[in-house]
Amino acid sequence: MITLFHAPQSRSSRIIWLLEELGLPYEIRPVSIFRPMTGEGQPDMANPHPDKRVPAIVHDGVLLAESVAIVLYLLDTFPQAGLAPAPVDPRRGDYLTWIGWYATELEQALFAGLSGDLAGSPQKQRAHEAVVARLRAALDQGPYVMGDQFTGADLLIGSALAFGRPAFPADGAIDAYIERCRSRPAAVRAAALDDQSGLQLSYEQA
Amino acid sequence: MITLFHAPQSRSSRIIWLLEELGLPYEIRPVSIFRPMTGEGQPDMANPHPDKRVPAIVHDGVLLAESVAIVLYLLDTFPQAGLAPAPVDPRRGDYLTWIGWYATELEQALFAGLSGDLAGSPQKQRAHEAVVARLRAALDQGPYVMGDQFTGADLLIGSALAFGRPAFPADGAIDAYIERCRSRPAAVRAAALDDQSGLQLSYEQA
Repeated sequence: MITLFHAPQSRSSRIIWLLEELGLPYEIRPVSIFRPMTGEGQPDMANPHPDKRVPAIVHDGVLLAESVAIVLYLLDTFPQAGLAPAPVDPRRGDYLTWIGWYATELEQALFAGLSGDLAGSPQKQRAHEAVVARLRAALDQGPYVMGDQFTGADLLIGSALAFGRPAFPADGAIDAYIERCRSRPAAVRAAALDDQSGLQLSYEQA
Repeated sequence: MITLFHAPQSRSSRIIWLLEELGLPYEIRPVSIFRPMTGEGQPDMANPHPDKRVPAIVHDGVLLAESVAIVLYLLDTFPQAGLAPAPVDPRRGDYLTWIGWYATELEQALFAGLSGDLAGSPQKQRAHEAVVARLRAALDQGPYVMGDQFTGADLLIGSALAFGRPAFPADGAIDAYIERCRSRPAAVRAAALDDQSGLQLSYEQA
């Protein structure tokens, strides 16, 4: 059984999407969090996340925090979903490279773009342009960053772009990619569950 | 065979350390890179990294870029080194959580601290303090972030802290941790090889 510690409309929303893609039974445990963007909310002592943030999951007694960790762990633990190339698959290198790029390059470019830090820093501008260029080059092939196969990398990248869209220039290919990701049936189901998650339901999907 | 595309005294230096920890045959291929901190250097067309940066490795025809991706890949591909809990090991959750924390939390705090961005942003200050607190809590147990076992998470965290030490407050436990990491025999050998890597040697270690 998997338990997701979740706050509505937050970084844990995409983990509902991940769990819907996997089609496994899971339970959503709503927790309150401090929301740095608005200054609202309080940390919840019942939240096992080391920083009292989200997402965190517990699977068979194993605690994971951080979206990247959760994606890597669940997709390797449940390979039948086909959302991550296996360790022996030659595409594993590309998959891990995109995950690493998301975590270190895209996330920094996203926050630099949202916070207005780019204006004063040629170094951050250059890094930001490199992120957009690498994404665009992949989407020119598409439809997903690794080509035909939707993977955990798209889940992280697509949800981050949707969240931080204003951090990046207007671009039809990026917009179409975000839409392609969030129109997936699992993502649509997750959006509905996110809104209802204050109800503390358990979703047994068999 | 593993080929590392490397620029001296850069983000690829720690991958020499990783390869020395693994004790596998590998080859260092020096490449020039643009160095954003100083504005010096030119990208090298012979570098297979998508952004012409370092590190990048090729292993049996599989290309990987980004330190996080390379650490995850090599430690899972060569489990005999014992630097990563196996997927079925209950410590896998903690390992991936630390890798995810390094990539998204520590790296952002490091650059915010080095760039002087903290002063104007209570949000970045709070994130920075949370990073230091989580690291300190782990080191209070120690000697490594997961306890007794040195893992790929320490290699990433220890090398980032050594590189960006001024980004964080004076703290004897952090200093001792950095020293503990970089005094490992593999790290000492890597530092010597880093300095000589302009020689384009192949290191067959059997």
